[in-house]
Amino acid sequence: MTFPRVAALSDIARLADRLPVADHAAAEAARARQNSLTKPPGSLGRLEALAEFMAEWRGTARPEIWGAQALVFAGNHGVCAQGVNPYPQEVTAQMVANFEAGGAAINQLCEVNGAKLSVIALELDRPTGDFTAGPAMSETECLDALWQGASAVDEGADILVLGEMGIGNSTVAAALAAACFGGPVAEWTGPGTGSDNAGIARKIDAIERGLKRHANVAGDPPLILAALGGREQAAICGAVLAARAARIPVILDGFICTAAAAVLYATDKRLLDHCLVGHASAEPGHRKLLAAIHKRPVLEFDMRLGEGSGAALALGIVRAALACHNGMATFGEAGVSEA
Amino acid sequence: MTFPRVAALSDIARLADRLPVADHAAAEAARARQNSLTKPPGSLGRLEALAEFMAEWRGTARPEIWGAQALVFAGNHGVCAQGVNPYPQEVTAQMVANFEAGGAAINQLCEVNGAKLSVIALELDRPTGDFTAGPAMSETECLDALWQGASAVDEGADILVLGEMGIGNSTVAAALAAACFGGPVAEWTGPGTGSDNAGIARKIDAIERGLKRHANVAGDPPLILAALGGREQAAICGAVLAARAARIPVILDGFICTAAAAVLYATDKRLLDHCLVGHASAEPGHRKLLAAIHKRPVLEFDMRLGEGSGAALALGIVRAALACHNGMATFGEAGVSEA
Repeated sequence: MTFPRVAALSDIARLADRLPVADHAAAEAARARQNSLTKPPGSLGRLEALAEFMAEWRGTARPEIWGAQALVFAGNHGVCAQGVNPYPQEVTAQMVANFEAGGAAINQLCEVNGAKLSVIALELDRPTGDFTAGPAMSETECLDALWQGASAVDEGADILVLGEMGIGNSTVAAALAAACFGGPVAEWTGPGTGSDNAGIARKIDAIERGLKRHANVAGDPPLILAALGGREQAAICGAVLAARAARIPVILDGFICTAAAAVLYATDKRLLDHCLVGHASAEPGHRKLLAAIHKRPVLEFDMRLGEGSGAALALGIVRAALACHNGMATFGEAGVSEA
Repeated sequence: MTFPRVAALSDIARLADRLPVADHAAAEAARARQNSLTKPPGSLGRLEALAEFMAEWRGTARPEIWGAQALVFAGNHGVCAQGVNPYPQEVTAQMVANFEAGGAAINQLCEVNGAKLSVIALELDRPTGDFTAGPAMSETECLDALWQGASAVDEGADILVLGEMGIGNSTVAAALAAACFGGPVAEWTGPGTGSDNAGIARKIDAIERGLKRHANVAGDPPLILAALGGREQAAICGAVLAARAARIPVILDGFICTAAAAVLYATDKRLLDHCLVGHASAEPGHRKLLAAIHKRPVLEFDMRLGEGSGAALALGIVRAALACHNGMATFGEAGVSEA
């Protein structure tokens, strides 16, 4: 693991100066290749941009995906005591068992798009603290989860799909987004797995009380992560950073996954330069969050499942982009006349 | 081939009453299955709708894709004499050779998404007539091309991807769309493979002259196809009809492919009930055309290449939809608690 172990949450703010940056020469070489291929220039649209993105992070004009990794982090949340989710909390462990048995959406999407899936359950029998009553995690707990996320990254992968599972974590995500980017809590809060209006009102109330209780960490995103986040959110941050250290491009999933990674953006926006967002979730806060972190999603498919499902679906598009980029003939090779 | 051979273009208008219709019972059974799977109901968004669409046309609650066929029809166009395209007309045959050698975008996209590609070159050395001077095709020529398209469909396929290649055919597509759906020619006409403003003006002028010359076929879409269309447009119509006869769902490509199939919609809108549109092309007329035929594209990726490339990209999404639909565990199977 080339990623430097973070000894304190305050170290995260200094990482952007130490981690690899985009390889612009590789991106330019990839663009030159795109313009030589047998098609009108630009006619593959966003597939061309995806090929260039992969080139600038893999540091080669002709990037390939030999190994794609998918990581799903699961955690449980003390804030469920506030009645923020219609599903019982044991569903987190049940869904982890479903992932392990191969029965969830993410299993099928990883299989169809060729990603190796690992599911990391983070102390499910020990939920984080209820953030309306105290900090969700101590700094040590948060750093441990961050490190578990970082350690799970396979440095030999060419691309990393990230996802999460955790009953109650759309409330956690909305709390993180509101704390990092401001604005009315109601604009960050939606139905999640299926809350009705009364449930959404309970979510908003819990988040507002949480923000008030943890006003002391306002403006310090890594401390916000410990105060309001969950283990799977911290693990996602760790995985994003470890991937960056290994120049592995990342595909983030929907609202909850993006909100976790957005803590890094709020810390130093350069920390998400190597990340795509796989899709725009139907969870209403996601579009607001995408605007806040200046990311255009790969897909818009009205999905709102989590698990990394939207990111794994987008992996197929990235594979298609690279298939064209690497497999097409140039005008010269094919003997096709140019305009 | 169960598709009844069309003896005259006027027969097309009567086909909708004879061809298979959607199997609503299969679609309902697919919906019931979706609601039993381990996810919040509806959370896979448009993937769920795609699974139901496949179910209603394949006539089974659990449709699968064992064989996916892709057909690219190529033709040449007399209207190129009007200076409507920056590429020389020999590029059509050069690109057909490129398809056959495996060097084009469509080859890579078919490989990555598992479709068997066939390219049908339609008398490239005998372009259609220049529609500014006379009919593009006689009724016999149009019926022959339609039949070639129908004959190319593999009745054993589970899904059909359609595309086209033909220098000058964005002019043909705009002419067909303007003739079938009305409105200012300029709103249907765009840069195609890369026309500048002067080139677009030449396209508009040629189309306006063509519409004027063939005012006698106004309101009769099959005759419009012969007067203004090309062989690849007629072949696409034939393939769409043959697929319908075999209950094979179709994925249409961008502006040119959709404009060809839209002749059938204008004849009887039921004739496109079994068709998806794979993507919204960057060619500006495509969105107007999608509105006219009431189709929401699967993807929006700023592509404008043709060849079936957007449809082949969308095939990967349909495969993902069916992988989830067929592979996921139900709540009961997985022992996961419901809300």
